[in-house]
Amino acid sequence: MPAHSLKIGLIGAGRIGRLHAEHLTSRIRSADVIMVADVFEEAARECAELYTIPYFTNNYHAVLDYPDIQAVVICSSTGTHARIIEEAAQAGKHIFCEKPIALDLPSIDRALEAVERAGVKLQIGFNRRFDANYRRVRQAMEQGEIGHPHLLHIISHDPEPPPIDYIRVSGGIFLDMTIHDFDMARFLIGSEVDEIFVMAGVMVDPAIGAAGDVDTAVSIVQFSNGVIGTIDNSRHAAYGYDQRVEVLGSDGAVSSGNNYPNAAIISDGHSVRRDLPLRFFAERYTESFVVEMAAFVDAVLHDTPVPVTGYDGRVPVIMALAAQKSLAEHRPVRLSEIEQ
Amino acid sequence: MPAHSLKIGLIGAGRIGRLHAEHLTSRIRSADVIMVADVFEEAARECAELYTIPYFTNNYHAVLDYPDIQAVVICSSTGTHARIIEEAAQAGKHIFCEKPIALDLPSIDRALEAVERAGVKLQIGFNRRFDANYRRVRQAMEQGEIGHPHLLHIISHDPEPPPIDYIRVSGGIFLDMTIHDFDMARFLIGSEVDEIFVMAGVMVDPAIGAAGDVDTAVSIVQFSNGVIGTIDNSRHAAYGYDQRVEVLGSDGAVSSGNNYPNAAIISDGHSVRRDLPLRFFAERYTESFVVEMAAFVDAVLHDTPVPVTGYDGRVPVIMALAAQKSLAEHRPVRLSEIEQ
Amino acid sequence: MPAHSLKIGLIGAGRIGRLHAEHLTSRIRSADVIMVADVFEEAARECAELYTIPYFTNNYHAVLDYPDIQAVVICSSTGTHARIIEEAAQAGKHIFCEKPIALDLPSIDRALEAVERAGVKLQIGFNRRFDANYRRVRQAMEQGEIGHPHLLHIISHDPEPPPIDYIRVSGGIFLDMTIHDFDMARFLIGSEVDEIFVMAGVMVDPAIGAAGDVDTAVSIVQFSNGVIGTIDNSRHAAYGYDQRVEVLGSDGAVSSGNNYPNAAIISDGHSVRRDLPLRFFAERYTESFVVEMAAFVDAVLHDTPVPVTGYDGRVPVIMALAAQKSLAEHRPVRLSEIEQ
Amino acid sequence: MPAHSLKIGLIGAGRIGRLHAEHLTSRIRSADVIMVADVFEEAARECAELYTIPYFTNNYHAVLDYPDIQAVVICSSTGTHARIIEEAAQAGKHIFCEKPIALDLPSIDRALEAVERAGVKLQIGFNRRFDANYRRVRQAMEQGEIGHPHLLHIISHDPEPPPIDYIRVSGGIFLDMTIHDFDMARFLIGSEVDEIFVMAGVMVDPAIGAAGDVDTAVSIVQFSNGVIGTIDNSRHAAYGYDQRVEVLGSDGAVSSGNNYPNAAIISDGHSVRRDLPLRFFAERYTESFVVEMAAFVDAVLHDTPVPVTGYDGRVPVIMALAAQKSLAEHRPVRLSEIEQ
Repeated sequence: MPAHSLKIGLIGAGRIGRLHAEHLTSRIRSADVIMVADVFEEAARECAELYTIPYFTNNYHAVLDYPDIQAVVICSSTGTHARIIEEAAQAGKHIFCEKPIALDLPSIDRALEAVERAGVKLQIGFNRRFDANYRRVRQAMEQGEIGHPHLLHIISHDPEPPPIDYIRVSGGIFLDMTIHDFDMARFLIGSEVDEIFVMAGVMVDPAIGAAGDVDTAVSIVQFSNGVIGTIDNSRHAAYGYDQRVEVLGSDGAVSSGNNYPNAAIISDGHSVRRDLPLRFFAERYTESFVVEMAAFVDAVLHDTPVPVTGYDGRVPVIMALAAQKSLAEHRPVRLSEIEQ
Repeated sequence: MPAHSLKIGLIGAGRIGRLHAEHLTSRIRSADVIMVADVFEEAARECAELYTIPYFTNNYHAVLDYPDIQAVVICSSTGTHARIIEEAAQAGKHIFCEKPIALDLPSIDRALEAVERAGVKLQIGFNRRFDANYRRVRQAMEQGEIGHPHLLHIISHDPEPPPIDYIRVSGGIFLDMTIHDFDMARFLIGSEVDEIFVMAGVMVDPAIGAAGDVDTAVSIVQFSNGVIGTIDNSRHAAYGYDQRVEVLGSDGAVSSGNNYPNAAIISDGHSVRRDLPLRFFAERYTESFVVEMAAFVDAVLHDTPVPVTGYDGRVPVIMALAAQKSLAEHRPVRLSEIEQ
Repeated sequence: MPAHSLKIGLIGAGRIGRLHAEHLTSRIRSADVIMVADVFEEAARECAELYTIPYFTNNYHAVLDYPDIQAVVICSSTGTHARIIEEAAQAGKHIFCEKPIALDLPSIDRALEAVERAGVKLQIGFNRRFDANYRRVRQAMEQGEIGHPHLLHIISHDPEPPPIDYIRVSGGIFLDMTIHDFDMARFLIGSEVDEIFVMAGVMVDPAIGAAGDVDTAVSIVQFSNGVIGTIDNSRHAAYGYDQRVEVLGSDGAVSSGNNYPNAAIISDGHSVRRDLPLRFFAERYTESFVVEMAAFVDAVLHDTPVPVTGYDGRVPVIMALAAQKSLAEHRPVRLSEIEQ
Repeated sequence: MPAHSLKIGLIGAGRIGRLHAEHLTSRIRSADVIMVADVFEEAARECAELYTIPYFTNNYHAVLDYPDIQAVVICSSTGTHARIIEEAAQAGKHIFCEKPIALDLPSIDRALEAVERAGVKLQIGFNRRFDANYRRVRQAMEQGEIGHPHLLHIISHDPEPPPIDYIRVSGGIFLDMTIHDFDMARFLIGSEVDEIFVMAGVMVDPAIGAAGDVDTAVSIVQFSNGVIGTIDNSRHAAYGYDQRVEVLGSDGAVSSGNNYPNAAIISDGHSVRRDLPLRFFAERYTESFVVEMAAFVDAVLHDTPVPVTGYDGRVPVIMALAAQKSLAEHRPVRLSEIEQ
């Protein structure tokens, strides 16, 4: 283990927690996971065994109280994020937190203030910013390969809807799913969104409607710099995880396609075809999760700015709330209406 | 010349008139162009010579008065379409008319009533319906290859804006350009649009704004059957004519790409690249123009229904007017508001 | 009809003859087909009616004797090509002749000498040289986009084998099918082939073997300029007409793919797929046939060199004979062995 | 560390040795690298530090003598492979050895006999067999997606030639580079090669010719089951690492393309383009190296057959020797000529 590795405590040993545990223990040499916490002690124990983490606990305060731990990675359930951020900040730990910070602005703002006061670093888990495809799209714009941006189109479909029980506590499609695309929109265009209008419906599963949510939504957004963007979301794409963007600019366009398990093409008497794109987010975005976490570890070790700030975590929540309001009131909603 | 060819008079010998003349005289054996009319007699004369058309005239009434002529193809300026349709109907001629019928509903309705009274056929020139790519997209939906449609996305960009003088008399981007996409939306989804919301701007050329128009527009539409669609329009795509659609359905998705002059791929030390897509509408849609006109000739010769009716010509105009109103009033506009 | 149109007599009203008739009468304004000959008078009559050709005959001498006719297009059976070329040359007609000129060198040489003596033009029907894909490949090389060529790979598969009766008189796969690829190899690389080695077998249909031919063959060729090329041939590709090339050069590579009926992509729960490439040579190469014939008409009308000479028709026959010899003797064969 | 992890000694800490070290220590949980040996002690030390390997040595006998070590991974220079295999087998260690086993048959046969006598496992490092693209090609054939194979085409180009000093000791292009493709040919077609014919030249760099090697080679091979294959090799592809195959079968075809760093497409006024394919073999084949090594560890731990045997390491050497002979004698060479 390198002398200057970052000592990390992991809070939350569910699906995403284990993903980060795997990367931190095997792919990021400058990190050292000391302890893992989960309210289900068994989950914490299993995770510790699987990834050779020395300590496990069912109480995340044990992580915050452990002096050697310099940074925490928060992967607990959404409702606990803001509180743990506050407490971790007070404990002087640097923080990586999964999105969203919270589903309401006051909680977010309290958490961000605590971080500010404590002078610790906070990075939000918008992993897609670190994906090679999206980075190349942004790079094309930064390098002037397509001139000034005019139009943005984001396609973001999940292969299958999550369980209805999850839908009920998810905060709704905009806070749960579109929030990634709202972040991506800001990241790619490099400008803030002023206004949002939404059309949506229940097309995939009536049970989602019965749970008070929609499963198909189209958002149209106007950016401060004039760019107009659309975001297509569906909870179901039969062919897998569909994650694409395109930007039309004054001098050209850039688009990014899906990732595939192989580059084989089969031609027979019926069609010319290839296998389906990667179906599961963890496969599709593996590398982005590694790069994201490596960037956090780096920023803490070298005291440089984190690439995705607390502010970057706050704005997409405002956008999601504006989208909810637009859908409810069937009119374009300005983000400034939400801030008040 | 086959015994049962259709005797046609061509009205308008401009760019699109000549295109139809070429196809009618060389590619469609069952048609016979007898006379061409243009207010500029020289244009009519040139067209007659070029395509070996026996007669030319500077007065389209000569076409309507010529007893042998069974059908007219109207390619004159938009402002004259409705009037000529009326007169041609009264003269008992079958009618192919370029889009749009007119820029206002009363003119359209008078024209359609005249057609109705006369019992002649009227086909509107939405040629893209006959394009192999779009037909395959529609076929995929008809054959159940993607299940029920949920989301539609249309991309329709011109390589370059038309001259400002043309912009001024075009009726605006929605009546001039998006009208094709409004027709495509109805054609592909097979349902009517209830409501439209538009965000737009002047991004390509300030002169277009000075002329009272926008050059970049995004329309979001809600169909009666629940489908939500977006239409991206720009007057300028540096890489050529960009004409694509995609539909997400319950069981899959179908998309169609651009057409290219060749299938060569060049790899060097810088990139893996191909030549730009076809830049000019006449190249991109050549075959669709031939098939469209052949379908009209066929429908008249065999007394079968035309594939694109006067009603199909009327609805996109209503959609364009709704789009204009949405942009002006910055709110979603129902098509029923326009009909009144 | 333009004043200076070329008066043409068509000899042979089979499949390829009708194809040329259609293009000459509808797509090439500067040509005027005066007479069509076929040993089956009925075929000649039908062709004349279909394409509005004034005269038809069952004796091609009527074409050669008709003073107004300036050029002949020879589409009769291969065995008659060389003789008709000789007679047409003696009659002072310019000549377009389908490939191959003949299946033996002495016949070819007599025909070419007759052409030389008469001072008429002779163009051989290697239509693929006029295909947009192959032209772009050659252009990439001419423009230096890939540096100096090192390796060539040609894939040329038919969808289905021809009838066994045809196989028996075809001269074998090398003279019937690979001959096109031998021409393409010379056209693309711009250098002559010195030596050929062939491996081949009967894999598609034993009846082809019983008829004394092979149905699958791979030729490896060495060019004078050092380039090494391979040609993959099969009489059967389940997915359609497979016609591709690629060239690796010192600074990059260029490849060309197949042509498709549409640009639609369908994604469902099983695959991401598109429709099969164009299956029939007449669809795949339509435009190349038009451009080829227009080039011939042009060369005669303006007295410029034809783009595919009699020499270009002779060399691929030598290559095919060398390929046959290589297969028979299982050793590399130099083209100089055939010439003697 | 799992209780049942495989204790491994690594012999050779050069480029490929470090690659395996990284995967064994971070990606393969059931392996445990105990010691690393390199004749350059400094290289062994660095590797040990970088990958947290407990012991390092400049003498590989220390590895063979260390009782806890159950298996060795041989990444030393080619000339030492056969001898170390013999000694490792005598020491009762299971063996993973980089290709080729040796450049001459007697050395290979002595090594294989030692392995046979000792009853240890030996896996040869033909990593491409574990690449997702090639596996999918083989799977397509195994699952009958393309019927019976008829033709194989392999393209395998390096981005840049290795240093001339390396060329001199490499054994020549066939033993150094084509050997991978010879293995791939056997792997994909599932049949042995009977005969090889080669055409080759010096096109990339005259210094390679001066060193007694060629830099561009095309091999044509005949398989026992009738399939005919071609292998295109070049030491230089300006656009990166070009590694593709295609197989034509009775019912269709399967091909695999290159891997790219991202799926972004950029269209501007000049072209529609994407970034170059992955340039370096370690990037292109990362996953295949991991899967290959995991398969070895698995085979040893569970005492199951290794997926690439010593026999699989022997045959491609014979093929390479036949290729050399074919080039030297300019005639097709049967593999049986080499065995004698």
